[in-house]
Amino acid sequence: MGETPPFLADPDGTREEIMVATYHALRTHGYAGLTVQAIAEEFEKSKSLLYHHYDDKDELLLAFLAYMLEEFEAGVPDEAEEEPDERLGSVLDEVLTESAPPEAEQFLAVMVELRAQAANDERYEEQFTQHDRFFRENLAAAIREGVEVGTFRDVNPDRVAEFLVTLITGAMTRQVTSEGVDRDAVRREAERYVESTLRAEDTHE
Amino acid sequence: MGETPPFLADPDGTREEIMVATYHALRTHGYAGLTVQAIAEEFEKSKSLLYHHYDDKDELLLAFLAYMLEEFEAGVPDEAEEEPDERLGSVLDEVLTESAPPEAEQFLAVMVELRAQAANDERYEEQFTQHDRFFRENLAAAIREGVEVGTFRDVNPDRVAEFLVTLITGAMTRQVTSEGVDRDAVRREAERYVESTLRAEDTHE
Repeated sequence: MGETPPFLADPDGTREEIMVATYHALRTHGYAGLTVQAIAEEFEKSKSLLYHHYDDKDELLLAFLAYMLEEFEAGVPDEAEEEPDERLGSVLDEVLTESAPPEAEQFLAVMVELRAQAANDERYEEQFTQHDRFFRENLAAAIREGVEVGTFRDVNPDRVAEFLVTLITGAMTRQVTSEGVDRDAVRREAERYVESTLRAEDTHE
Repeated sequence: MGETPPFLADPDGTREEIMVATYHALRTHGYAGLTVQAIAEEFEKSKSLLYHHYDDKDELLLAFLAYMLEEFEAGVPDEAEEEPDERLGSVLDEVLTESAPPEAEQFLAVMVELRAQAANDERYEEQFTQHDRFFRENLAAAIREGVEVGTFRDVNPDRVAEFLVTLITGAMTRQVTSEGVDRDAVRREAERYVESTLRAEDTHE
């Protein structure tokens, strides 16, 4: 189970076991090659139990997407935990670190494949719209707080957050679809952006 | 043919006709639902002629990807055409305009779906790696020139270009996978980044 992200490592009940099986089947076959049979092969219980919970592959994959996004969102630090400045830094570090563990890459690859389905399927688009909104609100809250306490200048928090969500989506996408992306370069330019356009003058290094 | 990007509107020879048919089949069925039969239905000539040119769906789709990327790259302005400053602005405007024509969205949707295949298929990853490199080199050349003529500060052109390619990839991805992306916000923050971290002091507005 070396390739299992932490939240999938210890499934609790049949539903979570199905989610873990779906994750592994997606990793092995990709979205385009996925069948219920392939999911059943990763599932320790019976195929009929799969169908007891989900009518078809479509329903199962949408439930899986909702589950992945929930788990992803549960991992995002919330307002109380860190200073606004540190929160932005943590999010950027997490996405742009040079030494992401292999299971993080695998998780990203599945997310990128599922997101691409939204180009053709409104149900996926709806979920990613909500996800992006959650992520943007979370970042905007950190920026708003930073403006209030004087760490940041009087910027437009929603606009900055929309920019950062776009940058992060690009980083996640490129990381698993293009070789040799210089994450350190992206991280350093993101820091220059934060430094030059966000940070209040008196907190400059 | 209202949904056909300009470069596909006037196919020249059988190969290009197959590319156009593939494009329309991808738009209708998505990557996961695509069959050679679906491509044949969009193709005015015979299915056997399809197989004369391409052994299977896999080979055809890889040829299609190479064709799309070539056409995309041919549309990127090169060094001689504009001032460095304007070139950066044009690229950002093109990707982040609020009023993209429907055919541009359709083209993007196909690109995003094909890019996601790179998460699971090294042949796709190789093509997108080359594509990203082309795009990055093109932007880095504009920035390097800007540094030389004094429009830009003494920044690291490769690093800035990597950052911008990442931002642009994110913008393209979100545009077709998430509703209500505020492209104008992203464009304005990108401009603030360029203004605050790139533009030389004496050319500030």
